Amino acid sequence: MRAYGQHYRTIWLSKDDPGVVQVIDQRRLPHRFVVEDLASVEDVAVAIADMHVRGAGLIGAAAGYGMYLAALHALQSSPEAFMAAMARDGARLTTTRPTAVNLQWAVNRQLAAVEAAGSDPTARIQAALTEAHAIADEDADFCRRIGQHGVAIIREISRRKGGQPVNILTHCNAGWLAFVDYGSATAPIYAAHDEGVAVHVWVDETRPRNQGARLTAWEMVQQGVPHTVIADNVGGHLMQHGLVDLVIVGADRVAYTGDAANKIGTYLKALAARDNGVPFYVALPSSTFDWDLRDGVQDIPIEQRDGTEVRLIEGLHDDRLISVLLTPAESPAANYAFDVTPARLVTGLITERGICAASEAGILGMYPEKQK
Amino acid sequence: MRAYGQHYRTIWLSKDDPGVVQVIDQRRLPHRFVVEDLASVEDVAVAIADMHVRGAGLIGAAAGYGMYLAALHALQSSPEAFMAAMARDGARLTTTRPTAVNLQWAVNRQLAAVEAAGSDPTARIQAALTEAHAIADEDADFCRRIGQHGVAIIREISRRKGGQPVNILTHCNAGWLAFVDYGSATAPIYAAHDEGVAVHVWVDETRPRNQGARLTAWEMVQQGVPHTVIADNVGGHLMQHGLVDLVIVGADRVAYTGDAANKIGTYLKALAARDNGVPFYVALPSSTFDWDLRDGVQDIPIEQRDGTEVRLIEGLHDDRLISVLLTPAESPAANYAFDVTPARLVTGLITERGICAASEAGILGMYPEKQK
Repeated sequence: MRAYGQHYRTIWLSKDDPGVVQVIDQRRLPHRFVVEDLASVEDVAVAIADMHVRGAGLIGAAAGYGMYLAALHALQSSPEAFMAAMARDGARLTTTRPTAVNLQWAVNRQLAAVEAAGSDPTARIQAALTEAHAIADEDADFCRRIGQHGVAIIREISRRKGGQPVNILTHCNAGWLAFVDYGSATAPIYAAHDEGVAVHVWVDETRPRNQGARLTAWEMVQQGVPHTVIADNVGGHLMQHGLVDLVIVGADRVAYTGDAANKIGTYLKALAARDNGVPFYVALPSSTFDWDLRDGVQDIPIEQRDGTEVRLIEGLHDDRLISVLLTPAESPAANYAFDVTPARLVTGLITERGICAASEAGILGMYPEKQK
Repeated sequence: MRAYGQHYRTIWLSKDDPGVVQVIDQRRLPHRFVVEDLASVEDVAVAIADMHVRGAGLIGAAAGYGMYLAALHALQSSPEAFMAAMARDGARLTTTRPTAVNLQWAVNRQLAAVEAAGSDPTARIQAALTEAHAIADEDADFCRRIGQHGVAIIREISRRKGGQPVNILTHCNAGWLAFVDYGSATAPIYAAHDEGVAVHVWVDETRPRNQGARLTAWEMVQQGVPHTVIADNVGGHLMQHGLVDLVIVGADRVAYTGDAANKIGTYLKALAARDNGVPFYVALPSSTFDWDLRDGVQDIPIEQRDGTEVRLIEGLHDDRLISVLLTPAESPAANYAFDVTPARLVTGLITERGICAASEAGILGMYPEKQK
């Protein structure tokens, strides 16, 4: 997508150095646009854990490129130790964030690809690079297709409203910054905007890390999409008063029954959508499904991050990025990063293959090869 | 209640100057404890509009003292112009915040009291001062009684849990800072804590103005009540996992049918409480009822404040209070200050007379003199 008029993906191999992967350091947006070099598995692990990069698709792609860097560095190992080093690095990457299933998925793909390349180190490295690119390209392509399927929903509401702007609420950032390109929740929005369907996006700020106010709002500015930032508390009121036509969110892990883990607070918006008859869609590429997990509410692991992220917040003051304390110095804070929206509250899932019901039947009907 | 070990109310007449009303400037909490002098109706109006003082009960009490200052200044008017000046000042106070019904209620009480005092200016001023004190004392007394009634609910949960801490979630600040003393939602919590019932309070930070993270958390620190600050997004997840035993919130205006306007986001917590079988109580003194309003969701006016309150936030940095920008400079923000929780989601109302159902029958059963 566009950033300051230029085309970018969120992650790419450096043109100057094949041992360096480059990413946009998302901690600095919207105030600074910083490209960061990642030259080792540890660089990638820190970038994921400290959220220089975040979002289901992008951390999958970052893990893919991280495993390529792992292969490069494993060159120094004996041929016998190569796979052990790869597995160790894969485990390091997997433990950075517990909720997103894409991490394990990307690491497993790479281990299989490298294994299949035989014992020649150069072939292994080439296989890892090819697979990293494939994971990234597939992520971008899947998001593009999510847009093609999802735009039909927006078009239909626009038709019903006689061309009046379709008001879409989204939570957190499931935009192109969360993937390699296009985004999941945003792909239908961008597709609608590009084909001239009038849209207006309510951007939940998404405390505590404000991925909505910082990243989604920045994306909307860059793509020229009309939008309004709101506190996370506002969505219910808007829906009560007919000001939201549609909710689209992303997901970090979706059980094969349709229970969907996404950024903390998503469940509250799903409840409000249900209470007011507003359609509530979850957009995701199939890499976000957990094919082994039945009860999302009980069994999807929910990351707890440091309370400091709640107690302090960073913003721009006098052209400097500054953190300010929001609470009494004595008050502790808890920081649950995700919640799970039960399938019963989800109108449908928008995937790269099309739109399906958020149910075992709907999902396995769309992905019959996953039937056990 | 206690602030730094000393007893305070939120508003009082200066000991040194009977022409000065003093308040705690709540914009500076929790980082600074500043007492502010208000010497005119305009001072009071600005203090209410800019939220030096806020909360249903306190702005009612502030309007009461404001009308006493109005009477003092009306001394300079001719006896005939006295009441007209009072009415004009009353209108100025009433328009500062549209949602809270206590403003109009306090102004009306004062106009009636001054009218009843006859035409002698000194008697009028004395009547206005007596009424201002009466409004404040009554507010404190009503909140104390809310505590006595509400503590029974906490005691019962504590008994069922075998004395394990009762986890209570509250939104915004309906603490003593929002009233003259005790608070509405907090009064039962303080009463429980004082009688040795173990409680733990989940404090919603309450964006955009963070009255929870700033004021409720500060109150909890000052009274020594165990608490944890959370982002507004977290409550649903906590309720899904059995980590909330009870929700108690305040209100800014409650229809006689039980629909309750409170800080934006309250409705979302009520939905989550209903979805998870968690009792959801609204605590209010009777001054917060609107006896003329049937359909709260449609008819309670919802204040929209400046989007700047969403785009920027103030906090402490290097011992200075600093505002930082949270969004892209180009992104607009909307700032709805309240939402309305439909009566069907409210387990009960805790009033100074006792606990009743959030329904016309329940409310008019408790206040039969309001039957029309």
